[in-house]
Order: sequence, then structure tokens, then C-alpha cells
Amino acid sequence: MKIKGQNYRTIWFEEKTSEVKIIDQTKLPHKFVVKKLNNLEDSVKAIKTMEVRGAPLIGGTAAYGICLALKNNPSNENLKFASAKLIQSRPTAINLKWAVNKMNSELKNVSEKERYLFGIKKAKEICDEDVFFCRKIGEFGKKIIKDCLKKNNKKEINILTHCNAGWLATIDWGTATSPIYHAFKDGIKIHVWVDETRPRNQGSSITSYELNEEGIPNTIIADNTGGLLMQKGMVDLCITGTDRVTANGDVVNKIGTYLKALAANDNNIPFYVALPSSTIDWATTEFTNVPIEERSSEELSHIEGIDDNNEVKRVRIYPEKSKSLNLAFDITPAKYITSLITERGVCEASNEGLKKLFPDK
Amino acid sequence: MKIKGQNYRTIWFEEKTSEVKIIDQTKLPHKFVVKKLNNLEDSVKAIKTMEVRGAPLIGGTAAYGICLALKNNPSNENLKFASAKLIQSRPTAINLKWAVNKMNSELKNVSEKERYLFGIKKAKEICDEDVFFCRKIGEFGKKIIKDCLKKNNKKEINILTHCNAGWLATIDWGTATSPIYHAFKDGIKIHVWVDETRPRNQGSSITSYELNEEGIPNTIIADNTGGLLMQKGMVDLCITGTDRVTANGDVVNKIGTYLKALAANDNNIPFYVALPSSTIDWATTEFTNVPIEERSSEELSHIEGIDDNNEVKRVRIYPEKSKSLNLAFDITPAKYITSLITERGVCEASNEGLKKLFPDK
Repeated sequence: MKIKGQNYRTIWFEEKTSEVKIIDQTKLPHKFVVKKLNNLEDSVKAIKTMEVRGAPLIGGTAAYGICLALKNNPSNENLKFASAKLIQSRPTAINLKWAVNKMNSELKNVSEKERYLFGIKKAKEICDEDVFFCRKIGEFGKKIIKDCLKKNNKKEINILTHCNAGWLATIDWGTATSPIYHAFKDGIKIHVWVDETRPRNQGSSITSYELNEEGIPNTIIADNTGGLLMQKGMVDLCITGTDRVTANGDVVNKIGTYLKALAANDNNIPFYVALPSSTIDWATTEFTNVPIEERSSEELSHIEGIDDNNEVKRVRIYPEKSKSLNLAFDITPAKYITSLITERGVCEASNEGLKKLFPDK
Repeated sequence: MKIKGQNYRTIWFEEKTSEVKIIDQTKLPHKFVVKKLNNLEDSVKAIKTMEVRGAPLIGGTAAYGICLALKNNPSNENLKFASAKLIQSRPTAINLKWAVNKMNSELKNVSEKERYLFGIKKAKEICDEDVFFCRKIGEFGKKIIKDCLKKNNKKEINILTHCNAGWLATIDWGTATSPIYHAFKDGIKIHVWVDETRPRNQGSSITSYELNEEGIPNTIIADNTGGLLMQKGMVDLCITGTDRVTANGDVVNKIGTYLKALAANDNNIPFYVALPSSTIDWATTEFTNVPIEERSSEELSHIEGIDDNNEVKRVRIYPEKSKSLNLAFDITPAKYITSLITERGVCEASNEGLKKLFPDK
């Protein structure tokens, strides 16, 4: 998708220079910075510090991270070491594990000499597949948007989304935003309510930023606001992404998703979750078994912004004595989800629903 | 209650100098500033810009504002003018209207010469009554906390609150915090989850600040987090304040309250609302008739904090192109409220419940 009119992906391999590059998302929205990943350490750091974020993009970065680790040391030991390091870098998103496992099974029978280049090919394939899946999600989701517009007999649709499940959370298109981008390209009038998404403000910093760059009308709201907008009939549809869907359809996503799903349910507003199948954790049926990442409390107590001199400044916003707790994800029980939108189509958020679309899993 | 070990109220009349003084709450938590209100304009500005905030304190400030207006011009015209100006200063809190009406009915038969001093006496009475009511709320609420602790068979109680309905939102004690302060003084072990409360962060800036100053353990969380904590059994009880309760028990309070009430309901956690009866809007039964204040979008897009040089800095945190919408209150339907805690006791959030406690209204 576009930034300042130019097309980008969130991660790419530059053939000419053999370099892996990312958009450093910690600098958004105030600065647009492209960064080179040189080695495994860079890749782990990019995931940990959220230079890259969003379940599918974390997966793509992990795939390239494996390659960068193997460039100078393609041994089995190093493959194992790199895989463990990457899997530990963030605990909740299942795509990370999926991508690392996929790279391992692709590389295990490849000679050490060929491993790096073969790995790069496979990492590219993982990324290309994600783009394809996100496009398919967009095509299926677009139909939902069109049907909702028709049903509500409106000229414009108001969609609420939480956090960033946009193209910047994937390789391209996004998950939650892909239906929006596809419908918008078809001429549907769309306005998006963008949850700020504290504490890291991925909604205001990234979702609003990318919608702006694509010319899609959007308004940022405090995370507290969605319920009132739903009570007032100002939301037609909710779509979010997810970091992990359990085999029975419960959705682990950015903290606060659950509260919006409750409000949607209370106001009879459909609540959709969009995901590529790499986000499904087929091994887990009990959401209490999903580890919930606890991040630094400084993500809450401190914030970055632009000062009067147009410089990026970090300030402390909490009283010095105060403690804070920063949990990154919550769980939305399947019963509050209208449907899941996947690359194979739309299904009920349940084991039966998922199995119908993915009988091969 | 205490700041740096010294007892304060949020607004007071200094007999010696005949001055009305407030704590300028826009400077908290980074600076503690006492400010003098000189005239009507100062009073309206204090309410509008939230130097004073919280429904009961807004009422107290309006009462003193009437007096300050009458000091140099005690005419009926000026009383009418001042009343209108004050009522327009913020639209949602009903205590504002209540206090202005009360002052008008007290002053209408008083000679112009005596109006200022008589008004000051009445404004003091309004403030003293609020302190008495908040103390009563604390005594009734304390019992709820003790019973909950007993029922859950725990040594420590975890209470979640939203925004600031603390002593800084009233004259003293607070509404939602009064049961907490009273129970704490009785030796009950309490930990408070403090919702940050975007966009103005009254939770982190004011509630956490005042709990710190009273030595009550508390942890700030993003507004998104309460749902997960409830899912995980980390919340025993919710208590909030309110800016207006309709005659049938619906609660208008700081935006985001509704989402927490939904989550409490979904997890079988009791959700209490504490209020003095001046907050009850006996004339309104339909919550859709309550005006919801829209405030400047800069309250969302910009934020103040302390920089590395220990100076207060204001920064823009949103992309420059992005729009935002800042609605200040939402509505929690009565069915999601366990009980209302008032100065006359605890009642069901319903017309019948309220009428039982207030048959004279």
C-alpha cells in the first residue's frame, strides 16, 4: 500500500544489495524510516521492540531472521539457536511460532551451503503467501461490508477497528483493513472509527496514518468511546485482527478488543475478526492456556510526541510514585464474534466452523 | 484529605482575606498549585477548562461563582446572568444546575446589600453538605467492601475504578473513593486498579495521585485492561462515580464506564455507582435526552508530561492529518449496575429503588 504516494511492503529483500529491509514502526507516525536488518539480533530486536508488529508481519520477520542467522553460520545448531531466540521474542502471536516451524521443516533437508539462499526464497514465499491471503480476506470481507450497507440501507458505512491490523501489521493489505481497502477501491463510501489503542497507540499512530495515506476518511477516538458510539447508532460494523485464534474460535487480540466485542453484542452490531490461517492455534482449545504478554510499564507511563519545535520528545505522564501494569492482549470468547474472515472464506467462530473451512488441519 | 501530609479541601473560602481558593487540577499530578477565583469569569473558566472537575466539585464551584458575581453587582439581572453563564459552562453534570438553582432560591428573597455574604454562607453550606454526604457514602460503601471480602474469602480486596470520583472530584472524601478511604482507615487491605481514563487521564493523573498521597496501594492500567483483569479473577468489585443519574437509575459517567460495566456483568463482578443525591436528575427518565458533552479534539491529540529536564511539556501524539472526536461521557443502563450508594443508603438502580430512599423527591 502507499506512503506518500509510493507503494511499499512492510518487509522486503532487496535483490541488488541482498538486504532485508523493514519500515521502523516505532518511528511512526512522526517519521518514516526504512531500516536494514543485518543479523539475527536485529531481527529479534525488531520484534521485541515492535519496530515490526502485527502477527503476520512478526511471522515474516522471523522467517527472514532465520535466514540472516544462517548467512554466516548455516549449521543445525545455529538454526536451532536462532529458532529458539525468535520464538522467545514475543509470546502471544502464534504466527511467529508457525513461521519459525515452517522455515525449520523447509530447511532441515537442505545442505548447509544452500541454506541461506533457499531460506530467503522460502521467507519470500511466506511473505507472498501472506499478501495473497490478505487479498483473499479483503475479497471475502468486502462482501460483508456491501451486505451490511444494503441491510442498514445507508449510503456510507461506519466501521470501528481496534489497534492496527492494517497493512503495516502484515506484509501488505492488512487483515482487518483489507476488506476496507477492497470495498473502498470498489467505490463504497467508508468512514473508519479508529480506536487510539493505549498504551502504544497503534490505532492513532499506525491505523489512522495508513488510512490517511490511502485517502480513507477516519476519526481517532479514545478506547473508551466505542461503546457510546454503538449506543448512538454511529457504528455499523466492527472488524479487528487477531494474534491467535484458538481451535474453538476464541480470539486473542490487542488488549481492549474484548470490551468492544461486549459493546457490539449489547447493541446488536456485527463483530468480525479477520485472519490468515497461520493465526489459528489448532493445538489450543482453552484460552486460559494462552500466555498473555506483560510489557514494560514505561509504555504506559511515558509517551512520545512532537513538540512545538517539531522535534520528537518523550515525556512522563504519570505521577512519579505510581505503579502501572501493561498487559498486551485479552481474550474475546467465540460467542461474541459474528464470524471469522479467513483466506478460505467466512466461518463461524467455533471448532466446527473452522474445521469446515480447514478440514486438512 | 491529604496532599504531602497536609489536609485540604478542593475549594474553600478564606475568612481572613475573603478569598475563594481552589486546587488547579489541570496542573496535577506534576505540580500542586492553589489558585484564587476572583470573579464570575474565573469561576466559569475554572469549570470549563477543568481546573475544577467532578460533578460535586463543579456544583460547589458554581455556588461560589454566583457569590463572586454578586460581590460587585448584586442585582437580580446579574444573578440571572451569572446563573446562565455557569449553567452553560458544562452541559452534562447535573449538580451544576442543582447548585445554581439552589443558590437562586436561597438568594431571591435576600436584599441586594446582604446577598454576597449570605451567598458565601450558603455556598459554604453546600460544600459542607457535600462533605457530609460523601462521608455517609463512605460509611455505607465500606460495608459493601467488607461483605465482598468476606464473601470472596480473601485477605485483600481488588477494586477497579474509572476516572476520578475521588476527593478531588468532590469537596472532600470523594464518592467512589469514600468507601475505599473509610475501609482503609478500618484496616482493610485494599488494592485499587486505576483506569488511566483517556483522553484526560484523570485516573492516572488524579485518582492514582490522591491514593498515593493517602498511602493506598494502587496500579494504573490502560482503559483497555479492565476486561482481561476481570476474566482473570483479579477484580473483586468495581466502584465509579457519576455525573448524572436519571430518575430510572441509568448512569451517565465518564466515557468508558459503560464498557467496564459490561465486562463486570459478563464476569459476575459487582458494579457499584456512588453519588450524592444532588447527582440525581429526577426530571429525566430517558437517557437519550441527556446531552453528551463534546470537548476539544486537542485533548486527545496532545498530551502534557514531564520531560528529561523535569519541565512540563506538551506534545502532539497523533498524525498531523488525523481527525479525532472527543465525547466526554457515556451511559451505563441501570440493568448493569448492582446498586447505587447514596448518602441515605444503598439502593437498586431503578426508579423504585431511588424512590424508596428519596420518597420526598
